Amino acid sequence: MWFTENYGNIAKMSLNMNNKLHEEQSKYQKIEIYNSDFFGNVFVLDGVIMLSEKDEFIYHEMITHMPLTTNPSIERVLIIGGGDGGTIRELLKYNNIKEIVLCEIDEKVIEVCKKYLPSLSSKLDDPRVRIYNDDGIKYLETFDSYFDLIISDATDPIGPGVTLYKASYFELAKKALKPDGIFIAQSENPWYDKETLHNMTENLAQNFKNVETFMAPIILYQTGFWTFTFASDYFTLYKFNKKLSDKISEDCKYYNTDIHKASLTLPNFVRDIVVNK
Amino acid sequence: MWFTENYGNIAKMSLNMNNKLHEEQSKYQKIEIYNSDFFGNVFVLDGVIMLSEKDEFIYHEMITHMPLTTNPSIERVLIIGGGDGGTIRELLKYNNIKEIVLCEIDEKVIEVCKKYLPSLSSKLDDPRVRIYNDDGIKYLETFDSYFDLIISDATDPIGPGVTLYKASYFELAKKALKPDGIFIAQSENPWYDKETLHNMTENLAQNFKNVETFMAPIILYQTGFWTFTFASDYFTLYKFNKKLSDKISEDCKYYNTDIHKASLTLPNFVRDIVVNK
Repeated sequence: MWFTENYGNIAKMSLNMNNKLHEEQSKYQKIEIYNSDFFGNVFVLDGVIMLSEKDEFIYHEMITHMPLTTNPSIERVLIIGGGDGGTIRELLKYNNIKEIVLCEIDEKVIEVCKKYLPSLSSKLDDPRVRIYNDDGIKYLETFDSYFDLIISDATDPIGPGVTLYKASYFELAKKALKPDGIFIAQSENPWYDKETLHNMTENLAQNFKNVETFMAPIILYQTGFWTFTFASDYFTLYKFNKKLSDKISEDCKYYNTDIHKASLTLPNFVRDIVVNK
Repeated sequence: MWFTENYGNIAKMSLNMNNKLHEEQSKYQKIEIYNSDFFGNVFVLDGVIMLSEKDEFIYHEMITHMPLTTNPSIERVLIIGGGDGGTIRELLKYNNIKEIVLCEIDEKVIEVCKKYLPSLSSKLDDPRVRIYNDDGIKYLETFDSYFDLIISDATDPIGPGVTLYKASYFELAKKALKPDGIFIAQSENPWYDKETLHNMTENLAQNFKNVETFMAPIILYQTGFWTFTFASDYFTLYKFNKKLSDKISEDCKYYNTDIHKASLTLPNFVRDIVVNK
């Protein structure tokens, strides 16, 4: 059987699946898990591929190790979205981490990922992790200068994820962060959705001094060319702890110290989209 | 209408096309040209997308400007394949170039690209360009220490392109190059076809001192993560003319001086595939 994801009206990607392991309509979205020979288990929300067991390491290593090697003193982290647990797995490679709050709106996502994606979700029950099944925006409002890092590990700007791309969200994130806090988010692709990337960098630049976009090639995301955007008043991804990144690299399949620097290099056509050149 | 390319039995990619502008079965392969709103005209050989007008700049800039900024004295170039003319367009940005020999086995490819891809093929009639419609291997045998650069701008290792991935081809290329010559080729993707990448680096390392793999994200190639491999006894991509690359960057949409360096940085899982680490 073939699973097909539509990339707007431009293109579509189909994966050869052995079978569908799970399907349910939660309060928020349609959750599906497929199995494929090449990609292992594949997690789909509202028809959009979130990750596969085969290649998820690229996304999770990059969204975690870029900020963590930049501020190795990070203790308190808020993840908005990320119910699959992949980001938590990477975060818990750092001994400093004292508290991870996972704000995943859909408890069914966590339930399904615990069952079908154990290589990602195994650390969801770690005592340092607190899970809130609530709206990310409402939850953010309750914090003031508390977190060292906020990771916006969100779906695309459709469905329940739509508010996580608005200017008001970045203002709230700024308030919930300590003065030297870091915000990081996946920021879509520069081909089919360059408006989201542009707007995210513009909105973040209104709230943070340093706004830095980096990229990683991700097979199962539209166009294969994916971006992430980092923001901080105090830190910059260009100054990171090389000893720590060398050590973390040994335990990574994508990230390494050279990749840290290289991922920040943008092609000319992407420099034209982002506010930070 | 949707055009679909099969990625082995793993995945398939479909593009929304307005119409098919051309289809013919040449002596060597099936040649098709489609038109799409997003990608412009799309060139397909034996069911595999070669390029689109929208994103071809990434492939052609990278396969050309990486070697040309590394040896700015290049005068004589042999292109194996490349009948679309995109590589020639980029090469002719350098005043040094005295002679480009294009060895495209299929004259019908040139005819079709001249008609449907003028933004690529417009320089095919430049007086510095000589076109041979012959087998690349047979043609290579007639040269001894003649070229500064050989660009293997070939299709995948199937159909007429299959001989362009064998060890004997790299030996012939070495002989046709001057002692300080450079060989460069696209070397497939590290996910679905890591054997081709591995074998190419291994076979090149038997003939050249420096073998260096770099990458670029290309939407319409399988997995979006594409590699190129450079080989030379004398030159290394790590030592290039920054003044020249800064100047060339102004006229590029993908390539720039920072990208030159960054593209040489390989993720851990790709380092494990190539001979050159």
